[in-house]
Amino acid sequence: MSAIPDDFIQKTARLSEAVTKPFPGSRKIYVEGSRPDIRVGMREIQQDETEASFAAEENPPIPVYDTSGPFTDPDVEINLLKGIPEVRSGWIAERDDTEELDGPTSDFGKLRQNDEELAKLRFEHIRKPRRAKAGKNVSQMHYARQGIITPEMEYVAIRENVKLQELRRDARYEKLLKQHPGQNFGASIPDEITPEFVRDEIAKGRAIIPANINHPELEPVIIGRNFRVKINTNIGNSAVTSSIEEEVEKMAWSARWGGDTLMDLSTGKNIHETREWILRNSPMPIGTVPIYQALEKVDGKAEDLTWEMFRDTLIEQAEQGVDYFTIHAGVRLQYVPLTADRVTGIVSRGGSIMAKWCLAHHQESFLYTHFEDICEIMKAYDVSFSLGDGLRPGSLADANDAAQFAELETLGELTKIAWEHDVQVMIEGPGHVPMQMIKENIDKELEDCFEAPFYTLGPLVTDIAPGYDHITSGIGAAQIGWYGTAMLCYVTPKEHLGLPNKEDVRVGIITYKIAAQAADLAKGFPGAQLRDNAMSKARFEFRWEDQFNLGFDPDRAREYHDETLPKDSAKVAHFCSMCGPHFCSMKISQDVRDYAKQNKIADINIALEKGMAEKAKEFKDSGAEIYQKK
Amino acid sequence: MSAIPDDFIQKTARLSEAVTKPFPGSRKIYVEGSRPDIRVGMREIQQDETEASFAAEENPPIPVYDTSGPFTDPDVEINLLKGIPEVRSGWIAERDDTEELDGPTSDFGKLRQNDEELAKLRFEHIRKPRRAKAGKNVSQMHYARQGIITPEMEYVAIRENVKLQELRRDARYEKLLKQHPGQNFGASIPDEITPEFVRDEIAKGRAIIPANINHPELEPVIIGRNFRVKINTNIGNSAVTSSIEEEVEKMAWSARWGGDTLMDLSTGKNIHETREWILRNSPMPIGTVPIYQALEKVDGKAEDLTWEMFRDTLIEQAEQGVDYFTIHAGVRLQYVPLTADRVTGIVSRGGSIMAKWCLAHHQESFLYTHFEDICEIMKAYDVSFSLGDGLRPGSLADANDAAQFAELETLGELTKIAWEHDVQVMIEGPGHVPMQMIKENIDKELEDCFEAPFYTLGPLVTDIAPGYDHITSGIGAAQIGWYGTAMLCYVTPKEHLGLPNKEDVRVGIITYKIAAQAADLAKGFPGAQLRDNAMSKARFEFRWEDQFNLGFDPDRAREYHDETLPKDSAKVAHFCSMCGPHFCSMKISQDVRDYAKQNKIADINIALEKGMAEKAKEFKDSGAEIYQKK
Repeated sequence: MSAIPDDFIQKTARLSEAVTKPFPGSRKIYVEGSRPDIRVGMREIQQDETEASFAAEENPPIPVYDTSGPFTDPDVEINLLKGIPEVRSGWIAERDDTEELDGPTSDFGKLRQNDEELAKLRFEHIRKPRRAKAGKNVSQMHYARQGIITPEMEYVAIRENVKLQELRRDARYEKLLKQHPGQNFGASIPDEITPEFVRDEIAKGRAIIPANINHPELEPVIIGRNFRVKINTNIGNSAVTSSIEEEVEKMAWSARWGGDTLMDLSTGKNIHETREWILRNSPMPIGTVPIYQALEKVDGKAEDLTWEMFRDTLIEQAEQGVDYFTIHAGVRLQYVPLTADRVTGIVSRGGSIMAKWCLAHHQESFLYTHFEDICEIMKAYDVSFSLGDGLRPGSLADANDAAQFAELETLGELTKIAWEHDVQVMIEGPGHVPMQMIKENIDKELEDCFEAPFYTLGPLVTDIAPGYDHITSGIGAAQIGWYGTAMLCYVTPKEHLGLPNKEDVRVGIITYKIAAQAADLAKGFPGAQLRDNAMSKARFEFRWEDQFNLGFDPDRAREYHDETLPKDSAKVAHFCSMCGPHFCSMKISQDVRDYAKQNKIADINIALEKGMAEKAKEFKDSGAEIYQKK
Repeated sequence: MSAIPDDFIQKTARLSEAVTKPFPGSRKIYVEGSRPDIRVGMREIQQDETEASFAAEENPPIPVYDTSGPFTDPDVEINLLKGIPEVRSGWIAERDDTEELDGPTSDFGKLRQNDEELAKLRFEHIRKPRRAKAGKNVSQMHYARQGIITPEMEYVAIRENVKLQELRRDARYEKLLKQHPGQNFGASIPDEITPEFVRDEIAKGRAIIPANINHPELEPVIIGRNFRVKINTNIGNSAVTSSIEEEVEKMAWSARWGGDTLMDLSTGKNIHETREWILRNSPMPIGTVPIYQALEKVDGKAEDLTWEMFRDTLIEQAEQGVDYFTIHAGVRLQYVPLTADRVTGIVSRGGSIMAKWCLAHHQESFLYTHFEDICEIMKAYDVSFSLGDGLRPGSLADANDAAQFAELETLGELTKIAWEHDVQVMIEGPGHVPMQMIKENIDKELEDCFEAPFYTLGPLVTDIAPGYDHITSGIGAAQIGWYGTAMLCYVTPKEHLGLPNKEDVRVGIITYKIAAQAADLAKGFPGAQLRDNAMSKARFEFRWEDQFNLGFDPDRAREYHDETLPKDSAKVAHFCSMCGPHFCSMKISQDVRDYAKQNKIADINIALEKGMAEKAKEFKDSGAEIYQKK
C-alpha cells in the first residue's frame, strides 16, 4: 500500500500530454551498437515529396539528435512513480567494480529515509545505492586511461554521428550533406566520431561523460570541444515558488525541447525528495550545487558550514545518482578582496557563500583544502566536477577582471589534481562579457585548464535588456560555443527578474539550441548542415509542413504561420502571407532556374554573343505568364 | 469639409495610448545646438537614490538616444490627420536651392491626386513638393563636399553624443562612464562626434544622412560605421492582410521601441496613400523599394516593366518624401545563371523581379543601364541609395557564393558613379550566413564598395528555427555590427512564416536594439557602456524600478518580475524570486564589501600574515548574522 496520498500520485504519475506527444512528422528510431543493449535513440523527421510542378523527387527522412529520451517513444509506457527504463544497469554491473550498499551511507540520507512524515513525498522505488568496491575507481576517465572503451563511450559515439556514415553511403543525401568548411580555432574535430576517439578525448580530459553509477536511467552524453555543443537547462524550486510535480514536469519538458543536461538548483524544502523523483525519471545527466543544500542544513548561516557536513551532502547526493557537482573550490580567501571594488561584487550564489565562510573564519576555503578528499568521493560514484566560477562577473563592468582570472587559474590547478585521481572535470565560465572580450575567456580557459571542457552561462553581451536576457546571452553563447566552449548553460527570458515558467524554459532552450547549432555549423562539425539544407530545400519548394517539422519548434512555427494564413490550403500554396501571390521571389526564382536549364544557358555571356533576341521572343511567346493566377 | 469618412478619421487620427504614453521614470529632453531651431530630442531616465543600508548616494539621470520622436513628448499634441511638426523646413528653405512645385510632377502622382474615389483615404494636408532648382544638387553629400556643415549634420552630431561631453564634466558620472576598450576592426571612431567629423564622413561616403527635402518632419539620423549602429524596421501591408491605420500605428510603434529608420514594403492597394500618411507622421527616415510599386502598376508582369514607368515611380515617391530607395541595380543579366544551382535561388523580391525582366528581354537591367539617370533624380530631392542585394543568399547553403559577390562588386562600381553625382549610398547585405563566413561579407563590402555604409538583414546563422528567426538573425546581426555594419535590418519572430503583428514588431526591434548595443559596446563607441553600468549598479543595489526603467523594454521587465513576486514591496526587497531571501548573492557580496572596507583589508594576504584569528572572532561576535530575517 502506498503511503503517498492519491492526489499527489495523480498529479505526479503523469506528465502532461504536451510533454509526451510525439513530434509532428517524426518517429523515434534506435541505432544499435556493437551489442543489442546499446540502442541509441534518435528522431527521424519524415519529409513530403517534392511536387511535380517543380521536379518530382523523394525527400529522404532527416535523422536528428534527440534528447527527449523515452518520453517521446509511443512504445514506452511512462509511469513517473516507477521511473524510466534503466539504460546502463547491465553495463555497470558487468564491470564488476561496484557493490550494492545496504542503504544510504550519508547521515542525511539515512535521516530522510527514516522520516515517516516524508513518506507522502517520497519516490517509492528507491534502489539501494552502489559504490566502487574498495580501491576501485569507476570513472569513465579511469576506464579511458586504461584503454577501455565502455558502452557509454560507444553510445555517445553513435549519438554524435546521428547516422552520418549511413547517410554518406546513400545517394539521396549527397546534396543535403554539402557543408561549408568550418573555422574551429584549433579544435580537433574528426570527420566521424569513433568510440576510440571518444575514449582518447576522455583520457586526455578534453571531454567528459557525466554518468553516475547510481543514475542508470541516463542516456550518455559527451561534453567536449570536439563534439556537438551541448546545452544545460536549470530547474529548481526556491523558498518562494514551485513544487515537486512542477519540477518533474519541467525536467521532462527540458528534455523534450533539447536540454542535454539539467541542473537541479532547488533551494527550498524537500530538495532531497525532489531530486530523487527527478533522477529516477531523467534521461539527461543531472547536476547540482551541493553547497546550496549544505547551507539549508545550517539554516542559511554560511559561517556554520563545515567540511564534515559538506562531505555528507556530497555522499548523500552521489548515492542518489547526481552526475555532476558544481564545486566552487576556486574561491580562495585571498581572492575575495579582489571583488571589493566591483560594480556587482560576487554574483554566484555558491561563490558568495564560500566568500562569506572564508571571511568569517579567516581560513582558506574547505573546498580547496579538502579537494583531494572530494576527488575520493567523486571517483567512487563517477561524479564529474563542474568547477564553479564563484567569482564570475555579474556585469559587463566586471568582466575579465583580476578576481575572475585568478579563480580560473586555481581551477586549472584543481583540474590537474582531479585528473591525478582520474576524475572527470569541466570548468564553468561567465556570465556577463562584452563581445570583444569573449574570446579571451575561452583562450585562457583552454590554456589555464589544459583543455578541460568549458561550460559557460551565456555570456550576456549587454546588461540593459531584462526580459530578453535569453537573447543578450544567446548572442554571446553562439560566439563562445564557436570559439570552443563545450556546453552552454541556458538563460531564460525571466533571468534577473523571476523564476521561469514552462514557456520561458521552452524559449530559453530553443534560443540555446540555436546558439549551439550556430556554433556547430561555424566549427564545421560533420553533418551539422544537413538539417539546415533540408529546411532550405523545403522552403524553396513550399513544403510548409516540412518546414515546420524540420525546425526546432514545429508547434510555434505552425502557430505563427496559421495566424495570418489559417487555411490548410495555404500550407501547400506557392506563396505565403508575407508577399502575397504576386510577389513570391521563390516562385520567380524557380522560373529562372527552369528557364536557364531549358535553354542550357551555362554562361549567358556566350548566349548573349550568339545574339539572343529570338530567344527572348520565344520566352515571351511561350511561358512569360509565370505568375500564379489569383 | 473633409471628404474622409468619420469612422476612418476616428480610427486614424489617434495612435493608441500604448504608442504615446511616456516611458516610465523618463522625461523627454531637448539638447539645443548652435541655433534655437536645432533641438535634439533625447530621453532621460531618472534613478532612485541608493538606500542608506548600502551607502546613501544620488544616482544621476541617464540620458539615452531616443527614436520615438514627438510621440512620447507630452507637450506635443499628436494629430495624425495633420502630421507631426516639421523639424527641417527652415533649414531646407534657407539653403535657397530648392523650389516649390505646383504639384506632383509624376504621372502617377497626378493620377492619384485627381482620383475622387481616393479622397476618403487621402491625407488631407499634402504639401506641394519641392525639388532642387535647375542645376542644383541638394544632397547632404554635396554640401559636405563643399565644406558646408548643415543643420542636419550638427543635429546628428549632438544626437550621437547623447550629452557625453556634459556628463564627462559631471563628477556623478565618473564611475558610470568607465568602459572597456573596444575592438573596432579598423573603424575610425573618435572620442566625441563633432559636426565637422560628421561632415567629413559624409564627404568621404562613409556615412549618410537619409533626408529627402520633402520629408521635413524627419529627425536626422546618421548611418555609418563610425557612429552608433542603427536598426531598420519594416512595415507594409500585402495583398493578403492589413490596412492604412494599422501601418501608421506600426510606424509609431517602431519609433517608440527604437527603430532608427523604417522601410515601407507595402505591396497591396493604395500604397501611394498609405505612404503619404506614414511620411507625414514619421520622425524616422523612410525607405521603399520602388520596384514593388512599379510591378503593381504593370499588374505583376515583370517583363512589362519599363524604364519610363520606373522613372515615374521614383519621382512620385521622391516628391512624397521617401528618404532612401532600395534599387537592385546590381542584378545584371550575366549574374542570373549563377543562381541556377542554388538551393534557394533568388530570394530577394526585387532581385527576382529584375532577373525575370532580364531573362524575358535578354537585355541588361534598365536599373543598371539607367543608373546615371536615377542619380539625377536622387540628387534633386536628396534621396539616398540603398543599393539592393538582389542576389543575397536565402539559405546557409548559398552564402557567399559567386552570384552574391559578383553583385557586390557591381554595387561598388555603382557606388563610384553615385558618388560622382554626390549622391549618398549605402549597400545592402545578407541574409543567411553561418558565423564563420560573416566577416568575409563586411570585409569584402568595405573593400569593394569603398567603405560605403553596409546595411544587412541579420544575417541568420542557422535556418532551422522558424518562429525564432529574430534570434537566429540577432546573433549574426550583433557580429556583423561589431565587424563594421552600419545598420541592421530587423527580423521578427514571424520571418518566413507570416506578417508580423505589433507584438512581433516590438520583439524584433528589442532584439535588434540588443544586437546594435552589443556591437557599439564591442567597438568601444564612446559612452556606450553608460546605461549598462547604471543598470548593473541598480541591480546590485536592488533598485528594481530603476532596473526596469533602464532596460530597453521596461513594461516587459516589470510584467515578468510581477509574475512571481507581484507585491509592490518586493520591488524594494533585497532579494528576488530566483533565490529567495536566504540565498541572495548580491546581499552577501555587499556584506563582503562592507566587511572588507570596514577592516581596511586592501590585501588580505597581509592581513593573514598579521594573524587574523581575533578578527574572525570579532566578525562572528558582531555582525555574522547578515542574512535578512524573513
